[in-house]
Parts: sequence; C-alpha cells; structure tokens
Amino acid sequence: MPMEQQEKSARIGTRINAKEIAEPFRNLIKRAIADQKGPKPKLVGLLANKDVAAKKYAQWTAQACEYDGIEFELREMEQNQLEDELNSANNDNSIHGIIVYYPVFGMLPHFMGNTVDDYIRDSVSIEKDVEGLCFTYRNNLFRNIRFLDEEKTKKCILPCTALAIVKILEHLNTFNSNLSVGKRLKGTIITIINRSDIVGRPLAAMLSNDGARVYSVDIKSTYLLENGKYSECDEEVAEAIQKSSIIITGVPSKSYRLPVSCIRENSIVINFSRFDNIDVPSLMKIKGVRH
Amino acid sequence: MPMEQQEKSARIGTRINAKEIAEPFRNLIKRAIADQKGPKPKLVGLLANKDVAAKKYAQWTAQACEYDGIEFELREMEQNQLEDELNSANNDNSIHGIIVYYPVFGMLPHFMGNTVDDYIRDSVSIEKDVEGLCFTYRNNLFRNIRFLDEEKTKKCILPCTALAIVKILEHLNTFNSNLSVGKRLKGTIITIINRSDIVGRPLAAMLSNDGARVYSVDIKSTYLLENGKYSECDEEVAEAIQKSSIIITGVPSKSYRLPVSCIRENSIVINFSRFDNIDVPSLMKIKGVRH
Repeated sequence: MPMEQQEKSARIGTRINAKEIAEPFRNLIKRAIADQKGPKPKLVGLLANKDVAAKKYAQWTAQACEYDGIEFELREMEQNQLEDELNSANNDNSIHGIIVYYPVFGMLPHFMGNTVDDYIRDSVSIEKDVEGLCFTYRNNLFRNIRFLDEEKTKKCILPCTALAIVKILEHLNTFNSNLSVGKRLKGTIITIINRSDIVGRPLAAMLSNDGARVYSVDIKSTYLLENGKYSECDEEVAEAIQKSSIIITGVPSKSYRLPVSCIRENSIVINFSRFDNIDVPSLMKIKGVRH
Repeated sequence: MPMEQQEKSARIGTRINAKEIAEPFRNLIKRAIADQKGPKPKLVGLLANKDVAAKKYAQWTAQACEYDGIEFELREMEQNQLEDELNSANNDNSIHGIIVYYPVFGMLPHFMGNTVDDYIRDSVSIEKDVEGLCFTYRNNLFRNIRFLDEEKTKKCILPCTALAIVKILEHLNTFNSNLSVGKRLKGTIITIINRSDIVGRPLAAMLSNDGARVYSVDIKSTYLLENGKYSECDEEVAEAIQKSSIIITGVPSKSYRLPVSCIRENSIVINFSRFDNIDVPSLMKIKGVRH
C-alpha cells in the first residue's frame, strides 16, 4: 500500500488511541462492581421513540453494561407512557440508574415553559440520573459546584462524553497536577467547536472550571469562558484556534472541515463528531500535533 | 350623575373589593413582624435597568415594606454589576430577602441555554427568593411539591400576584373546606387568559394543584391542566369560558376585551391586567356574577 506508506512518512504528528486510555478506567469500574456486596447495580433505559440512532445508543448501553457487570433492562413504550414509566422507575428501589433516550418529543413545548423533553430530563430522580442532565447537575456544573452536599461526599454527575474528553486531556498531561483542583488548566487556551447540551456546552464549562480560557463556538456565536464568567465575544473562529493549544471539534455535518492551517504546532486536536471534521493527513503534517 | 345611577340600577352582579380582602392578611404580617424578636427583616431590591415600570414597582415595594415594618433597601447598579451584587446579597447574613426587578437583559441568551435573566432568577439564593421564581420553587410548583423539606417545615415560596388571586378565590368561598388540601377545587372549571411566567402560568398550576380543571389560554395556544397532567388542547376560548365558573384575565393590551356574552350566571370574573380587559357594565348585567 504505497499511498499509506507515503502518508506515514509525511506524518509528524502522533495519533492517540482513545481505547487504550479508556481501558484502565473500564477495568476499574468492572473491578469495583465485581468487588461490591449485594445485588448488581441495575440500569434501566427508557426508549419511547422510533429513532434509529436512539435504538443504536440503547444497544451500545446494553453492551457496555454487560462488559462492566451492570444489569441493564431496556423498556420500550409509547411517548405518552414515558412520564408514568419514568415515575415508576424513579420510585423503584431495585433500580439504581435511569437513562432516557432522546429526542422523544423533539421541540414540543411543555406548559412549564421549556420543551417536554426538558421537563422529562428534570423529572429523572437526582439519585438515578446517570447522564447528569437534570437541572441540579447542569446548574451546579455551570456554577462550578462539584458536590451535592456540603460535606462533599456526593460528587455531582457529569455528562459522560464530555467527561471522557477531559480524561483524555488529563492522560495527555495537559493538567498541571502541581496546582490545586480548579486551576490545573491555568494558562491553557481551548477552542470547542460544538455547543450541544450534552457534549460541547458542559465540556466548555468543565474545562473552564479547571482554569482554562475556553472559546465555545457554534454556527451562530462564540462565547468566551474565563474565571467563571460567560460572555459572547466577537473573536473569529480562526483567531480562537490560532491562540489555542487544544482544539476540540464535534460538528454534526459531513461537509464541515476544521481550518487546519490555523492550528499551532504541538496542539492537541480531538474530534468527537461521527463525521470527519478534520483532514487528518494535513493535520498530521503539523509538528508535534497529537490527534 | 344620572349615567352612573342608570348603570347602578341595571347592575345585577356584585363588585368585590380586593383591598378589603387583603386587609386582614396585611395586618397579620404587620403583627407577626412587630412581635418577632431580633432585628427587622431586611429586603434588598436590585434595580439594574432604566425601565420606568420596574422603577415604579420598586417604589411600591418600598411603600409596602414601610407599611409592614420591613426594612427595604433599593440598590441601583449597571447591568454588568448585577451578578456580583446579587452574589454579595446572597452571602450577606443581614439580608433576608432579595427581589430583582426584571427585565434586565431582556431576551439576551446566556451560555447555559436560557436567557441571562433566567440565569439571574436561578442565581437568587433559595433562602432569600421572595418572588418564588428560581428553578426549585418553579419546579416544585409544577409538580405539586409544597414543601422544601421532607419534614414539611419549610413551605415553598409562591409568586405573590398569583397567590393573591388564590386568596381572593378562597375568600369568595370557592374552596370546599370539607375536602382535603389538594382537592378543594374538585369539580371547578377555571379559565385563565394569560400565561406569563410570573402570574398566569403559576396561577394555573396552583389552581390545578388544588383540584380544579384549568384552561390556560394565551395568544398562541390553550393548555388543559387536570390531575397533574398538562396537555395542549383544541378547545376554543369561548367554549372554555362557557364551561368555567371562574374566569381570570390578565391580557397586557389596551384593545383586548373578554367575550362577556360567553360568561355563565354566578361566575367569578377577575382581571389582573392594568388594562380594562372587561366591559364592566355589560358584565354586571349577568345574574349573580362577582367581579
């Protein structure tokens, strides 16, 4: 395969294998579950839509639970049964975690003001919300409150994909462990191109809570997060990327391409979109880049 | 004044004097404050806009506090100082209540997803939120959770105008005190024409929580609230009014007029808009109507 060899020889950057980073964490979880007394933890997935991606996600949950030793039960129902099913799962002591597969009602508004899906998100018991999407967890994240209780025994739940990206960055030694928690990314500038409720938005808050200066970019606007303040800013995306040593992209579009020419040497570049947001061969030509 | 006499003679309905209903409540508050030991309770108003109506509202707060024996301090500031001022008031033990005069940032979006004003509303300490507008109180109201604690010692705060309307309805003997709390409006149908966050929406939830069947109407849609469920419905406004024995209007428009011809005999009709939503002489011709 001469093409591939040619590419390889032109590579200066390093490819990072996320699976290898995940392995010790998965083993930790597996061992902790195996070592605990009493019944296996039980996760219930509530699927109330015909969305193919949601169904796929439910299958992945089942596989991951099997690997980890968690009991998983998928409950499928009609839309209008979801609220009652959720309440019954909330009140069932044999269930330890609940995951709802969205979107269920899409943008359908709820009487309370937001959408019905928002209302459902806030209906999941705080004790069982494994996704960290209910108001209390969201609100605490955006205010950098890390524990539910004053005694700091109950950690707030964080959205999993965003947390996984933080763990990758920690693994790549971007966190200065000589500094105290909340300051370990001091001096680091990060650009995140995605502001979804489940990944880009919480990820920006998490990295900002650790001391980074974060540009949060979506198609409409750019926000700068710094020292617990959120402000819209006029910075061009290219400019933000040029300043950043960490660039994270997650644009859910086939056609989007990260402007690789703006990326500095020795940067870390992560793509969590299922689409190729990056022209990898070009990226790999940048000195010291890790992807 | 022959016109007025003429009107009077044609009247069959009864005018209700809200001030008289309020009087005993105000005296109760006054006495409770006078009787308590320690320093007077202190309310701080935060005014960060140039809105004339907001300033007026602040003046009313000051007057009401003086009457009740509450210490009131109005703090005026620039928009961008509001968050810091609010944090400092939240953390100041000598302050017992906080009221923010909205709108401050209008529809300006916040990084967290809603508007900046929503973010500020949720930033007021739950211990000091006299308006009952922060997420916890709103969420508890819409889920009919009446206390903050399981021991039921701390009542949730309810938005004042909506609560005042409930008190008027209680005074008019619409609540069946032979039934248990939460069922006292069983069998009563109510139409509310207004779905603002501060009056119409919470009022609909409160009356529904007391067992009523409530039609919540705004310019775009009608919701039916019944047995803790919220659903959009196709009912025409005229039809909803015809079924109702209590009609509450609060349309912020000079031109809106309640369709008086749809109102049943012996109904209670309340207008909380500062505009005349009702042609009172026509209304007063309906037998047994109270307004």
